[in-house]
Amino acid sequence: MRRISDGARRSVIQYIYTLTCENRPGIVAAVSTCIFEHGGNVRESQQFDDTESGRFFARIVLDHPKNRLDLPKLHAGLAAIAGRFGMTWTLRDRAQLLRVMLMVSKFDHCLADILYRWRIGELPMEIAAVVSNHPRETYQHIDLRDVPFHYLPVTKETKAEQEAAVWALVQQTNTDVVVLARYMQVLSDDLAAKLDGRCINIHHSFLPGFKGAKPYHQAHRRGVKIIGATAHYVTAALDEGPIIEQDVERISHVSSPDDLIRQGRDIERRVLSRALRWQLDGRVLINGTRTVVFRD
Amino acid sequence: MRRISDGARRSVIQYIYTLTCENRPGIVAAVSTCIFEHGGNVRESQQFDDTESGRFFARIVLDHPKNRLDLPKLHAGLAAIAGRFGMTWTLRDRAQLLRVMLMVSKFDHCLADILYRWRIGELPMEIAAVVSNHPRETYQHIDLRDVPFHYLPVTKETKAEQEAAVWALVQQTNTDVVVLARYMQVLSDDLAAKLDGRCINIHHSFLPGFKGAKPYHQAHRRGVKIIGATAHYVTAALDEGPIIEQDVERISHVSSPDDLIRQGRDIERRVLSRALRWQLDGRVLINGTRTVVFRD
Amino acid sequence: MRRISDGARRSVIQYIYTLTCENRPGIVAAVSTCIFEHGGNVRESQQFDDTESGRFFARIVLDHPKNRLDLPKLHAGLAAIAGRFGMTWTLRDRAQLLRVMLMVSKFDHCLADILYRWRIGELPMEIAAVVSNHPRETYQHIDLRDVPFHYLPVTKETKAEQEAAVWALVQQTNTDVVVLARYMQVLSDDLAAKLDGRCINIHHSFLPGFKGAKPYHQAHRRGVKIIGATAHYVTAALDEGPIIEQDVERISHVSSPDDLIRQGRDIERRVLSRALRWQLDGRVLINGTRTVVFRD
Amino acid sequence: MRRISDGARRSVIQYIYTLTCENRPGIVAAVSTCIFEHGGNVRESQQFDDTESGRFFARIVLDHPKNRLDLPKLHAGLAAIAGRFGMTWTLRDRAQLLRVMLMVSKFDHCLADILYRWRIGELPMEIAAVVSNHPRETYQHIDLRDVPFHYLPVTKETKAEQEAAVWALVQQTNTDVVVLARYMQVLSDDLAAKLDGRCINIHHSFLPGFKGAKPYHQAHRRGVKIIGATAHYVTAALDEGPIIEQDVERISHVSSPDDLIRQGRDIERRVLSRALRWQLDGRVLINGTRTVVFRD
Repeated sequence: MRRISDGARRSVIQYIYTLTCENRPGIVAAVSTCIFEHGGNVRESQQFDDTESGRFFARIVLDHPKNRLDLPKLHAGLAAIAGRFGMTWTLRDRAQLLRVMLMVSKFDHCLADILYRWRIGELPMEIAAVVSNHPRETYQHIDLRDVPFHYLPVTKETKAEQEAAVWALVQQTNTDVVVLARYMQVLSDDLAAKLDGRCINIHHSFLPGFKGAKPYHQAHRRGVKIIGATAHYVTAALDEGPIIEQDVERISHVSSPDDLIRQGRDIERRVLSRALRWQLDGRVLINGTRTVVFRD
Repeated sequence: MRRISDGARRSVIQYIYTLTCENRPGIVAAVSTCIFEHGGNVRESQQFDDTESGRFFARIVLDHPKNRLDLPKLHAGLAAIAGRFGMTWTLRDRAQLLRVMLMVSKFDHCLADILYRWRIGELPMEIAAVVSNHPRETYQHIDLRDVPFHYLPVTKETKAEQEAAVWALVQQTNTDVVVLARYMQVLSDDLAAKLDGRCINIHHSFLPGFKGAKPYHQAHRRGVKIIGATAHYVTAALDEGPIIEQDVERISHVSSPDDLIRQGRDIERRVLSRALRWQLDGRVLINGTRTVVFRD
Repeated sequence: MRRISDGARRSVIQYIYTLTCENRPGIVAAVSTCIFEHGGNVRESQQFDDTESGRFFARIVLDHPKNRLDLPKLHAGLAAIAGRFGMTWTLRDRAQLLRVMLMVSKFDHCLADILYRWRIGELPMEIAAVVSNHPRETYQHIDLRDVPFHYLPVTKETKAEQEAAVWALVQQTNTDVVVLARYMQVLSDDLAAKLDGRCINIHHSFLPGFKGAKPYHQAHRRGVKIIGATAHYVTAALDEGPIIEQDVERISHVSSPDDLIRQGRDIERRVLSRALRWQLDGRVLINGTRTVVFRD
Repeated sequence: MRRISDGARRSVIQYIYTLTCENRPGIVAAVSTCIFEHGGNVRESQQFDDTESGRFFARIVLDHPKNRLDLPKLHAGLAAIAGRFGMTWTLRDRAQLLRVMLMVSKFDHCLADILYRWRIGELPMEIAAVVSNHPRETYQHIDLRDVPFHYLPVTKETKAEQEAAVWALVQQTNTDVVVLARYMQVLSDDLAAKLDGRCINIHHSFLPGFKGAKPYHQAHRRGVKIIGATAHYVTAALDEGPIIEQDVERISHVSSPDDLIRQGRDIERRVLSRALRWQLDGRVLINGTRTVVFRD
């Protein structure tokens, strides 16, 4: 569970509360009564009862009118409920931004897009680091002045070493979320496991079609009429992790592989930025090999 | 509030509970505790807190594991809460189907589509009546054998009289919902008022563009690149009622008005059937001039 | 090449001319000059130069103002050009409708949809036959009165025999196009070969994802966020034939396999009817394992 | 008609040829024969015969295998044909990039997006100037080092003067196309007329819905379920010019005006960049109050 900030300096404080547990009657009654009794007010509430797996998922945004919220008591109350129902849960001050590491290779359209959205406030986060296996000059047209950039080149021989450096950086920078923003290296099973549930990749195809390398060329060869991109959590199995978001665009017989790559950049940008925004806002919960996404 | 059936003959009984009231802390706690204490279990729950209007909306589907639900007590409990919070609410056995009147003119694509979806179980409802201002032979290729068909022709002179017959039929057939499935007559303010909140029209444009007559010809003249259709509640102001659903398709400079009409039929069918399905499932709540749609 | 009707009885006659050959300079000049010199006028013209395969594709719709067209001479002229450039070509009076055999199994949403579109003139064709491996009573709500219906049941043991009957029917009825409108039997390689290039199947997934059986259940298990359907030519390799059209709809974590099946019906209907309409209008040309689709 | 460069230094030279005239038999024959006889080869060809207005439109991309093209003679031949058929036409070496002026106000998402696409080669053009009514510091995170930036502030009193400066700049910089990339000033009728047919605006609504100011707030109030953006040519009538491209995204009852603005940025970026790319590639022809767009 994430640490709670006191938020004393701000006038309107909102908390994002997420939970998952085995489904049983009484969960919502217990939770909403606890929030109410400690002075909280539910602003948003979304829930999902997976009748297949028997698991329950919820995301609640709560604030406290007239500053009546007794946070330590609310926290203790929710902890007691969590114990009773066997919940996995988080409670986070919405203003306490998650720290995000962006990993990138040569193609920088997702990096440029995420940084742009971050600067104008569309992605409320702190950039813990930008990590690339290409030197800083590669991104000379992107303003990296206020962003910690790390050049971590990698070869087959130095992969273990480089991944150790990445992992050290994750720890040193208190990174919460790692985004593979067209980072074209496959993570080792070991690093994938360490980042389990908090590493988002953008794959440039409509999974499960066209896994692996050069998906737009694969799509062109197969003669599909629509292409897509997929944001998913990274797992040990390549391009098999839980899918967070997908989107598509129509193509035609005149579309060359280069046209697909061009249209794909647009799809990748919007799919990855949506997935990241939802992740930052506590809207994505993992449900086995799938996700629950409480969209806005 | 709708009457509750006992549902005693069925093994799995679900209730759809909808409510709206001024937003205040404690609503969800009160409601969910009441449901829990009377043996109910929340299967689905969606809510919306409109911070602009200050109103709260919710839809809850509940069932009762092990038949422990004490329905009269639940009903009394919810009534008490409704009184306390000033709620408008409904509680309905999901198996108690709404009764729908379909009104149609010459173009029957929406009628044929809705009847097909009804027959295969996609639209759980009872057909109270099919009403047309064209004779039954108009629909000779549609199977109307088990559907009560009423031919109610209308002219400028007989409009008041015809609408009286329509209204009488609504009452006699216990119609819950009226669907204007390309019924090309404008309802009078009086009839629109009588059907307030339960009469759905399909307008063949992407509103608010192209209100009134011949919208596809209007769209063609304006040279838009995308056309649409809109399902909305009927109000006295033409094509101004709260919008339930819209959808669109891309067109191009080669599209003639006839092409737009053809593509439009597809959009109209899916928009109207979605809106109707949501209406039947208690997913649409009116919020002033807008709607809250708890989509599936 | 298809036979040309004289079309003498109609006032406005249009011809659809399609061609494909190895690309060389001068094709368009030769063809358009030939058409012009014999009194024809080009109403629509679309072409595609596949720089990968080096092949050229075109579709031209021509009419003849003031009845000046000398059809036998035009035909001879185009034949001479075809010989010079090594073309595969067709010239067809647009009013001479193609004859279509619809094959269907238990699920009849595509059948009902195609018949509806045919009746209102959206699919200009002749229905050569409706063939099902289920008895006529299965479709009791569909008006089959003016449609030749054939019940051809099939078991593993009788498959060869049943396919022979299908093939005999194709020949007897002068069927031009066979549509597998959710016909849930896999055609033998032999029958697939006989129907090469004129048998269209609707597969209920966004190919190449989820080939084979129960694709919506596969999609649900994988946790995709968008589902689709694919119309393609039937070839010996299952679900591998050239794709004509695809479309998609968004789903979410709340969508059950049954929801996917429901949404899928809508996608299948529109994808298959589009593919068929284009086929009827000479808009689909096969390019190896892919298609050229001159969309309207 | 645009000047033709000799293109002698490049190995593969392509020309974009566009034409429009009253439709008559023989146009395609004349043009394609002329191209063929002077050693040209047609790579792409799209045409549209507007049966309503009686006008014909075409776009042809031609190259010349083995450098056999005799450009001056081709030019003379096409000019003769143009005279015969009363054509408006252009012939342009594809490598001779159009010069584009980008005008912007405070919101820079379209500017940043266009510059990004230009840098990676997605928009083949020369940036003649970036003009803003806000100072250069406004765009401190955008790399403007190699882009001529002009700060031209404007008030009600100085509008005529400022527009004179804009027009002078258009002339001095040999600007071919002006893009209003969220430039929030309404051009005077005079300037709009001077830029007729070569000034593209992005309007942040799905026209004709929500013209004028604050369209996302208008859309929110009306309760639409889908929002859009529109790229169109600027004319004297506000938001009434010929539409080049539109696109949409789905919203819901939870979407605030700020959410619409956020989603709208994404739609605006892709709609404007598509319209500009087609303009640069000679794919947009004006047809009265509408456009012919030969999409790729």
